[in-house]
Amino acid sequence: MPDEFAFLTALRAIATHPAAAGLADDTAQLDVAAGRLILTSDTMVERVHFRPHDPADSIGWKLAAVNLSDLAAKGAVPLGCLLNYALSGDAAWDDAFLAGLNEALTRFAMPLLGGDTVAIPAGSARSFTLTAIGRAQDRTPLRGGAQPGEALWVTGQIGGAGFGPDGEPRDLARYLRPTPRLAEGQALAPFATAMMDVSDGLLIDARRMAEASSVALTIALDAVPLALPGLDPIECVTAGDDYELLFTLPAGITPPAPATRIGTTSAGSGLTLISNGAPVPLPDRLGYQHGG
Amino acid sequence: MPDEFAFLTALRAIATHPAAAGLADDTAQLDVAAGRLILTSDTMVERVHFRPHDPADSIGWKLAAVNLSDLAAKGAVPLGCLLNYALSGDAAWDDAFLAGLNEALTRFAMPLLGGDTVAIPAGSARSFTLTAIGRAQDRTPLRGGAQPGEALWVTGQIGGAGFGPDGEPRDLARYLRPTPRLAEGQALAPFATAMMDVSDGLLIDARRMAEASSVALTIALDAVPLALPGLDPIECVTAGDDYELLFTLPAGITPPAPATRIGTTSAGSGLTLISNGAPVPLPDRLGYQHGG
Repeated sequence: MPDEFAFLTALRAIATHPAAAGLADDTAQLDVAAGRLILTSDTMVERVHFRPHDPADSIGWKLAAVNLSDLAAKGAVPLGCLLNYALSGDAAWDDAFLAGLNEALTRFAMPLLGGDTVAIPAGSARSFTLTAIGRAQDRTPLRGGAQPGEALWVTGQIGGAGFGPDGEPRDLARYLRPTPRLAEGQALAPFATAMMDVSDGLLIDARRMAEASSVALTIALDAVPLALPGLDPIECVTAGDDYELLFTLPAGITPPAPATRIGTTSAGSGLTLISNGAPVPLPDRLGYQHGG
Repeated sequence: MPDEFAFLTALRAIATHPAAAGLADDTAQLDVAAGRLILTSDTMVERVHFRPHDPADSIGWKLAAVNLSDLAAKGAVPLGCLLNYALSGDAAWDDAFLAGLNEALTRFAMPLLGGDTVAIPAGSARSFTLTAIGRAQDRTPLRGGAQPGEALWVTGQIGGAGFGPDGEPRDLARYLRPTPRLAEGQALAPFATAMMDVSDGLLIDARRMAEASSVALTIALDAVPLALPGLDPIECVTAGDDYELLFTLPAGITPPAPATRIGTTSAGSGLTLISNGAPVPLPDRLGYQHGG
């Protein structure tokens, strides 16, 4: 397996953290202080989570980014990650994947510590998994922490990574290389009562927060910051791949990171959409449901 | 996706540890003491690491066992794991997989804390990943710790999970449901200078230990404990899936767990095979090379 040998050599060049020990063992050895670890793992499958023609470097970047985004939503500081990689059979593709992965890991200071490399049968969709480990702050906002009478906020803009009528992402860079909101999440975690990243669509993820928190959520459609002018707001709030942070704060608290107030919580359950103060019907499809 | 909903419900019934928080968040929150974590992750791919007709429960068991075996080889105590699961499209198969996984997790006290569930395109080989986290003891024997003048030992018996001339594993139970040597590894770790599990074949794994340790290894073929009487020793030491522990001890130390002395280390490099004191040529194929 010359592919695997070359790939492991390339991995070793990236995995320079002492805990990786040069990838010379089946395990990583990570020294930690006493405290709370945040653990997350995401799998990206060809033809499900990415398109076969998406650039390899962007798939590597995105695999790191989606996991970093989960850490960001807990306000965690990345400690390291493990990569499970299905060899493509194309050494240049593998190299580009690793280069993109390494760009994200370097930019957000998450060392590669280990993992596994496998061959897959010809014709099978490739599947890549990254498992990230972070260190929590004193407070870890979960999905389920929202209380009635709070404000709902979101960072950044929504809808840019969604697909337009031509079947292409409206903002290709944003679709290919999302930015995990790590600094924002770390600033917000001490104050947010609930926090999660928006990965499958603002509405579907907001409904998940409402369910986990046992509160009702009302979102003002006209308050949602849209990624591009002139877009249909409903298309934006049902598009996926935003990787912005959705969070609740007690009334009267100003978030310590740039964010937009888009709604409120109240006693009850379910998700309500309003525009200019009037109710708007929920669309049939609230977002993507491809992941667990 | 009714499959995914049912699967998540079944997962929640297993993930009862507080760190899993009912799988209601995208992350797990694991409180740890200060110290060294051992991290490992293994992927099993259909038609590469398991056969499509292998029973689903055994695949779940084996995915846990191969990761536990890596923890065992470092003498680590399991703290928890994350599962990345590709839905099969067959709810009964998914249930059986989880039942087998849960049997192993329960028996070896490794709580399920989180992970990811994905759909895959029709016709693709399924791929399952488990990432395990353990707590190290004061000493963590790596592959690369062997010194010249030591003895080489192995737990249990070798070769039983190999394939016979009929194309079937000689000991089907051992192939389907390997036993990770956790108690043995924990007892051995304070004394072993190097330790690893035997997953791809005794000879190929021994050569990896020799390379990582920069020593020469000599294995006495007639000393290797064979899994079944009458087997060809060369077939046994090149078969995979043993999941026994291979380790070195300074001369004169008796291992605190049942094991057989099968060789010695010396200054130099490479792997030498002897039988009744005379050199035996190394076979062309030392074992499997399917994993990283």
